[in-house]
Amino acid sequence: MRELAGRLDLCAINTATLGHREAIGTVVEAVARRGFGGIAPWRRDLEGQDVAAVARRIRDAGLTVTGYCRSSAFPAATPEAARAAVEDNRRALRDAATLGARCFVLVAGGLPPGSRDLAAARRQLQDGVGALLEEARQLGVTLALEPLHPVYAAERSCLCTLGEALDLCDTLDPEAQGGLGIAADVYHLWWDAALPRELQRAARHCRIAAFHVCDWLVPTRDVLLDRGMMGDGVIDIPGIRAAVEAAGYDGLVEVEIFSAGNWWQRATDETLSVCAERLVRVC
Amino acid sequence: MRELAGRLDLCAINTATLGHREAIGTVVEAVARRGFGGIAPWRRDLEGQDVAAVARRIRDAGLTVTGYCRSSAFPAATPEAARAAVEDNRRALRDAATLGARCFVLVAGGLPPGSRDLAAARRQLQDGVGALLEEARQLGVTLALEPLHPVYAAERSCLCTLGEALDLCDTLDPEAQGGLGIAADVYHLWWDAALPRELQRAARHCRIAAFHVCDWLVPTRDVLLDRGMMGDGVIDIPGIRAAVEAAGYDGLVEVEIFSAGNWWQRATDETLSVCAERLVRVC
Repeated sequence: MRELAGRLDLCAINTATLGHREAIGTVVEAVARRGFGGIAPWRRDLEGQDVAAVARRIRDAGLTVTGYCRSSAFPAATPEAARAAVEDNRRALRDAATLGARCFVLVAGGLPPGSRDLAAARRQLQDGVGALLEEARQLGVTLALEPLHPVYAAERSCLCTLGEALDLCDTLDPEAQGGLGIAADVYHLWWDAALPRELQRAARHCRIAAFHVCDWLVPTRDVLLDRGMMGDGVIDIPGIRAAVEAAGYDGLVEVEIFSAGNWWQRATDETLSVCAERLVRVC
Repeated sequence: MRELAGRLDLCAINTATLGHREAIGTVVEAVARRGFGGIAPWRRDLEGQDVAAVARRIRDAGLTVTGYCRSSAFPAATPEAARAAVEDNRRALRDAATLGARCFVLVAGGLPPGSRDLAAARRQLQDGVGALLEEARQLGVTLALEPLHPVYAAERSCLCTLGEALDLCDTLDPEAQGGLGIAADVYHLWWDAALPRELQRAARHCRIAAFHVCDWLVPTRDVLLDRGMMGDGVIDIPGIRAAVEAAGYDGLVEVEIFSAGNWWQRATDETLSVCAERLVRVC
């Protein structure tokens, strides 16, 4: 496992960690000033902005774009809505390419309104990702399927485990031609007894395109917006990072924390400093 | 799949559904009067009671005891505490036998205080269940491993999926000599893409000892105490029941709803009537 001490250049900040309260330019400067090597912006950070100009600003700051967050939901109540979702995601994929992002993070989406059919939602996900794959390859941006914790199955992600995400990779990209992989987030995967085995499987085709860290607090007051700073919860982060890196992942370690009640209430520089310290000491 | 219309004798009420507000004798009478075929009491219902007398009362009311809820946590911070947990569970197992319960429901327990080692917790679970198995066989009570939703991995159950529970069954009871099985609860399992495959696997050794229904509400305000009445959420209950019964399960369909804000606020007879109606119409 790589040593992170003195190597903040191996670490990145997902802008969600800072609560999307400041302009993207301000956030880019703060992240670079603190010495991080990368940043993962969200679409909402770029609304109304010139994407090429933001890309230049990130590049000039010396930051890698570890990922661009994130797709809108693929499962939809009608075929027209499903097609519109694909086209929306195609536009975001092109922005990811403009940003020079290593990957475009795909959050599957949950059940469409009125549906109880998870299998159908999963088929729509497969069709939608399949429709984007060729362009992703041409653009040189990996589509990173991010399985979310099963607690989000209804509302956010019908893709719930690493095993399921790898199955989808194998279906759509059986010969590992590239352009498709997974985003591994400890918050979503830590509970899974199959995780060591599935990470070994991911290694075979170098499927890991991104690695996200935060922590699972006990108690968790809100499964969406009460995620913890690394070290404040119960996830064995070094154990998972070791397995992720043993599986061939050599990209950045990205901090992504949704924390409405705690970290989003703090100053950007304070949160960044604590992230830097915990990455070295805890992860 | 069995027809439930006119067959409330195939259905059971877990006393948690009624919020543990009334004496067990009162609950037994109400459940029997409404025409249900079974009941699943909790240890808390029997505190300070003569278990044999309660068993007689249930038998006289014509009810099957579909399960006895539930084990205390197996993983513990010290070997002494782990042994004490096993002995506590052994006493409850004997009460389950006195009650004539079809199974003793095992809820694994989560991480001991201060631990981040889920694998160690799972080893403690395996050791603890192994220590109870011979007596369970002698008593004729099946130990029913209940995998809980992964959202409870930290605090309530290191056993998170049906696949993991079946692996544990295969490890401890490789020749399917009996005394060990699983409790399948739609709330805990519905999100899992591997569920159809794992239910087929459960069929091989007739591992399903209990089947619980409720529903997953959207939104879910509290993952522990905001479970829904069947039909009020997004779980495809008939789809899962069909797979469970195709896997050889011929026991009762048991309603278990934790609902502090809704059903636990209603009168027992009202909740029982709605359960009866939804079992027939929705499940």
